[in-house]
Amino acid sequence: MGRILFDLRGGDPGLRFSPYCWRAKMALAHKGLAFDTNAVTFTEIEHATDGFSATVPVLHDGGTRIRDSFDIALYLDRTYPERPLFGDPAIVALARFVENWTFLSVNALGMKMIVSDIHAALDENDRAYFRQSREARLGRSLEEAQLGVAACRGDLKKALEPARRALSDSEWLSGAEPRFPDYILFGSLMWIHTISRDPLFAPDDPVGHWFERAARLYPELGIAQSAA
Amino acid sequence: MGRILFDLRGGDPGLRFSPYCWRAKMALAHKGLAFDTNAVTFTEIEHATDGFSATVPVLHDGGTRIRDSFDIALYLDRTYPERPLFGDPAIVALARFVENWTFLSVNALGMKMIVSDIHAALDENDRAYFRQSREARLGRSLEEAQLGVAACRGDLKKALEPARRALSDSEWLSGAEPRFPDYILFGSLMWIHTISRDPLFAPDDPVGHWFERAARLYPELGIAQSAA
Repeated sequence: MGRILFDLRGGDPGLRFSPYCWRAKMALAHKGLAFDTNAVTFTEIEHATDGFSATVPVLHDGGTRIRDSFDIALYLDRTYPERPLFGDPAIVALARFVENWTFLSVNALGMKMIVSDIHAALDENDRAYFRQSREARLGRSLEEAQLGVAACRGDLKKALEPARRALSDSEWLSGAEPRFPDYILFGSLMWIHTISRDPLFAPDDPVGHWFERAARLYPELGIAQSAA
Repeated sequence: MGRILFDLRGGDPGLRFSPYCWRAKMALAHKGLAFDTNAVTFTEIEHATDGFSATVPVLHDGGTRIRDSFDIALYLDRTYPERPLFGDPAIVALARFVENWTFLSVNALGMKMIVSDIHAALDENDRAYFRQSREARLGRSLEEAQLGVAACRGDLKKALEPARRALSDSEWLSGAEPRFPDYILFGSLMWIHTISRDPLFAPDDPVGHWFERAARLYPELGIAQSAA
């Protein structure tokens, strides 16, 4: 059996926007592991994974199945110890902190920037599910919830300030080489970037430079052309 | 020559509130290194350190002098490798991220909670310096800048949410054992705690439980009685 990552797709089968799937794909590429992707829509996930998971990413690695991007990264480090995504156990805990910070600041803001645009980019069969589930979560219509990328760019710049300052001391959030904490933040920014047409970063923003470096790390993921 | 940490004191010589000095003292205790403190007021620092530094902490370790809490922690790991404060170089970079996040969220909020109370607790000779420098930085009077601990408690609870969620996965921000990232956040919360009379945490807050655990780590620092 091969190695397959279940990825999320939009109406355009090439549109891959899930932040968590980007984290998993970066983690696999970091390890130098070849894999195929099986791109499914939101409403296909349960059936495609035989009821194993309601969310993607899901990794099939030979006979092993793992869901959740963080758990996939932990599995990869256990199974393929070369080129650690974490390394020292303290990095696992600190990566959890980065994950929670990213969720509460960047992902929360990202919803305001693109949630209605995501809806428009989905496969037709996903739209009712997405509208209903997200409007229940957000407590308002997708159109009311989305304030727009341009309007929120200042808030995103401010939200990223801890990363910006950390990146003035080192090339990656994780030091001299990227590790999973970099991929966590990268995945969330790729989510916004793949849906949005507006530039996310001012030309002189160190976070933008870091984002471009990360996008160029693994040409096999085909990010460079979309993240340029 | 012995080991001396230059610490900051208030009008009461026993009042030690500097967040950065708490970080350095926790780091020294983590290493199991005995040290004396030389407690000075803000306006005594330059003279007491022979012009070496305008800020504390400053560590004299035999013939070596180091200023800045993060640099002191790096020095301690280089010089006394047992019981690492960082360990893997990735942890240094992630600790910088935690430091910047703490500064931008917790310290910024802490100013609103205690800046006027700090002024009241200072040695008389420090008050004019403190008022002038902080009012210039804040753009308003200390009394206007301080909104009060009770008023800001909800904001502090919200600001600490990434730490709260990370602490649901592990006992310390740094995993199974505390390391310097824990002492960074601890120092900033000790700063607020030592000045404030209002409780910082709701009784059921996991961050409060973590804070109490950290306060009890090193009885030789005499924190327990003040942080209980």
